[in-house]
Amino acid sequence: MHIDLNRSGSKTLPHQISETLSQRISSGLLQQGVRLPSVRSLAITLNVSQVTVSKAYDMLEKRGLIYCRQGKGCFVADPTHNRRQEEGCWQDLYDDYLPRAQLWRNFDVSEVKYPFHLAAIHSELLPLQDIGDTYASLVKEQPELMATYGNFQGDLELRNVMREHLKSRGISLTSSDLMITSGTQQGIDLVARTFVGPGDTVYLEAPSYTGAIDVFAGRGAEMIFVPTDSEGMRVDVLTKMCDQRPPKLIYTIPTFQNPSGVTMSITRRQRLLELARSYRCLIVEDDPFSDLYFHAPPPRAIKSMDPDGHVVYMKSFSKVLAPGCRIACVAAEGNILSRLIAAKSASDLGSPLLTQKAVLPFIAEKYDAYAAQLRITLRGRMEKAAKLLKLYAPPGVNYILPEGGLNLWLELPPSPDIASLHDLAEQESISFLPGDVCYSAETPSRHIRLCYSQMKESEMEEGLQRFLRVLGRFLQ
Amino acid sequence: MHIDLNRSGSKTLPHQISETLSQRISSGLLQQGVRLPSVRSLAITLNVSQVTVSKAYDMLEKRGLIYCRQGKGCFVADPTHNRRQEEGCWQDLYDDYLPRAQLWRNFDVSEVKYPFHLAAIHSELLPLQDIGDTYASLVKEQPELMATYGNFQGDLELRNVMREHLKSRGISLTSSDLMITSGTQQGIDLVARTFVGPGDTVYLEAPSYTGAIDVFAGRGAEMIFVPTDSEGMRVDVLTKMCDQRPPKLIYTIPTFQNPSGVTMSITRRQRLLELARSYRCLIVEDDPFSDLYFHAPPPRAIKSMDPDGHVVYMKSFSKVLAPGCRIACVAAEGNILSRLIAAKSASDLGSPLLTQKAVLPFIAEKYDAYAAQLRITLRGRMEKAAKLLKLYAPPGVNYILPEGGLNLWLELPPSPDIASLHDLAEQESISFLPGDVCYSAETPSRHIRLCYSQMKESEMEEGLQRFLRVLGRFLQ
Repeated sequence: MHIDLNRSGSKTLPHQISETLSQRISSGLLQQGVRLPSVRSLAITLNVSQVTVSKAYDMLEKRGLIYCRQGKGCFVADPTHNRRQEEGCWQDLYDDYLPRAQLWRNFDVSEVKYPFHLAAIHSELLPLQDIGDTYASLVKEQPELMATYGNFQGDLELRNVMREHLKSRGISLTSSDLMITSGTQQGIDLVARTFVGPGDTVYLEAPSYTGAIDVFAGRGAEMIFVPTDSEGMRVDVLTKMCDQRPPKLIYTIPTFQNPSGVTMSITRRQRLLELARSYRCLIVEDDPFSDLYFHAPPPRAIKSMDPDGHVVYMKSFSKVLAPGCRIACVAAEGNILSRLIAAKSASDLGSPLLTQKAVLPFIAEKYDAYAAQLRITLRGRMEKAAKLLKLYAPPGVNYILPEGGLNLWLELPPSPDIASLHDLAEQESISFLPGDVCYSAETPSRHIRLCYSQMKESEMEEGLQRFLRVLGRFLQ
Repeated sequence: MHIDLNRSGSKTLPHQISETLSQRISSGLLQQGVRLPSVRSLAITLNVSQVTVSKAYDMLEKRGLIYCRQGKGCFVADPTHNRRQEEGCWQDLYDDYLPRAQLWRNFDVSEVKYPFHLAAIHSELLPLQDIGDTYASLVKEQPELMATYGNFQGDLELRNVMREHLKSRGISLTSSDLMITSGTQQGIDLVARTFVGPGDTVYLEAPSYTGAIDVFAGRGAEMIFVPTDSEGMRVDVLTKMCDQRPPKLIYTIPTFQNPSGVTMSITRRQRLLELARSYRCLIVEDDPFSDLYFHAPPPRAIKSMDPDGHVVYMKSFSKVLAPGCRIACVAAEGNILSRLIAAKSASDLGSPLLTQKAVLPFIAEKYDAYAAQLRITLRGRMEKAAKLLKLYAPPGVNYILPEGGLNLWLELPPSPDIASLHDLAEQESISFLPGDVCYSAETPSRHIRLCYSQMKESEMEEGLQRFLRVLGRFLQ
């Protein structure tokens, strides 16, 4: 398998190898019982000494992730002890470039009754009838929309609507500075494939969004997680870190951050932009939640203060309108944007035109009134969840109530076995997101993320109570 | 800028650097007047000597692609001689990983009246009303489809339909061996990002599909183009090439190949599969056209003969049903497929569920009858085009009439200046695809590709006559 090694990095080579293998195992990319490459062959593939690979395998064996048998090789451990020693089909030895896949592992459509792991809004709250009506009239009146490859950059009429939308939020750009992507996930992926490569330094908040981490890991980036406090990313700490390792890119979710819920102060936003300008690097400003505030509107977007194109701003409409439509807007200027459009063309030849046209009238005419109502509803839900937490959260469980967004971020008492908690919850048909997938490597996290908006209100309340009981039993 | 150099490759380093820069210029990624990095800084970035970079710049200057000024640096040439010497904004120096983008350059929605460059089927021939009716009833009866993140692998019900579809074409798999992608372009991209990395050898037919070349180039692959004859890829030649450079992957469009129209014989298909098995590598079998035969059905798919998962088979439904819907099916087994699904999750969190459901009933119930009728219609068009070619093609223009698919592949007399022809055609509001974008580097090609199914029949006839007149004038 392919592993991007950073020979001038702060971590030793055996450490880097064992971290990547551990991520591959925990993502399910390396399945239980599968034979790892021999020490000799992996050493040749990675161009390192056999001692280095042996050390990495030792680390993994000590952590119980693999086991080795004299003369037979090393195998991914099977926690049920029902050890298959597979012959190793040719496919197992066919190299890939996927260091981890925690999205795949943790987010795929789940069969649980209480899917707290998924940050989404319940379909009853979404404007599906409006969007559906537009679909119905478009397929009748303009069927050729289904037959047309859209513009790679995205439909111009929709970009005009997005331009006005962003303008009302302090971001003044032209339609030619905007691109439509299939969700923000694709936007992040396009930036990464275009501008990030092996060894490039990417700074992120600690913790950060799993899907972004997967993508940057896939590009072989050196990811560095910057501590945060109640004002968001510690830009002072980041500034010192940049002295050591200049940034290629800084990825941030400044508003109601995913997963922590924290919002970056306006001062830090300004400083972050100054830092990016002085290092001539990009900021990716991922903004799924700024319309979903519960009290005061959040500080203005970093992009609104960006005179010379250092910020690639991403606004998700999927989450708030209809996740299944997969529509997001990416704002960037100059040849940063044109290169992203080039990358978009190679990814999928452009997003479906019909869907772009289907969400357009709603965004143009009704979005703001809808968002105002949605804020009230979500705040109500959050307060219901808060009440339950106050009543039933076991002692030692800490949290800060979010000022917006969709998630609760709970800190458990030291050294919890989150995997066992996950299993226990699953037995009650409850899922949550383990905090460790919000970091790049085996950073032990005692956090978990719960979304309070993905179910009907009554189900959310029922599920949360049930989960807090499970948590109580678990912590005893 | 980043360039993947192959230090053990057959081409010299200056040659590799100049080829990549030339591709970036012809794709429009490097614009006229932009200053290239200094010799010193590019040498440091690429970890090569300054002499190597100087040689590369010399090659480009000799070809007229750049010009250098003592003390000022080297600039991308401006053929209109209206030379801007830009100050170089920070963005120009911000490194990327895009070696070329010919899709972006050549396929974006064009304003020409006769878009012969786009291989598509005119909307009047597509079953848009059927698909539109399904959309209309789905948004009414199951609006929650718009609210749901689909399964990353694709909707199970659609995969069941695809399974039956493939079974009727000799490919027997289970639904769990199939994945839905946003067009075949995304399928190719997923395979490349998962399994192809810098220096990996990818074999393709000479010529091949521009979009696949863009993708493999973006992964830093060493692409090798295998000669073809009337039976398709010369597998005997490929076998010898593999002795020198073992394949990581073989990309083929065996049926009515894009752009050449040639179909691979059954014997070659078998041999190609044997070769892949002996090298334990993957074949990507891209199949957009096998249902669009004009006389006899083409030989069976390579995938239908594949017992141990060496073939990733891709069937486009976009082209034949509704390009704007972006639906394709990828068939692969075991952990080849599971890794592709993991990559799909990081790319876009899955394809839109509503669209998957919207094409489903048509594929299940009406596709075969529709395809039978479409074959007759397309054959009629091709014959109309053939008649015009026979009457009006200037002497020295050669072609073989295709047995299926959507394209004509014309060979012009030696050493034509295709760029000038393109400009001439554009003046008459006609576009075509220049053959050189169907290769990886500056392979001079005297071919052009024309699609005869993208316009109304009368417009196609009018446009083709007009183009052949332009071509006649040009060749005089």
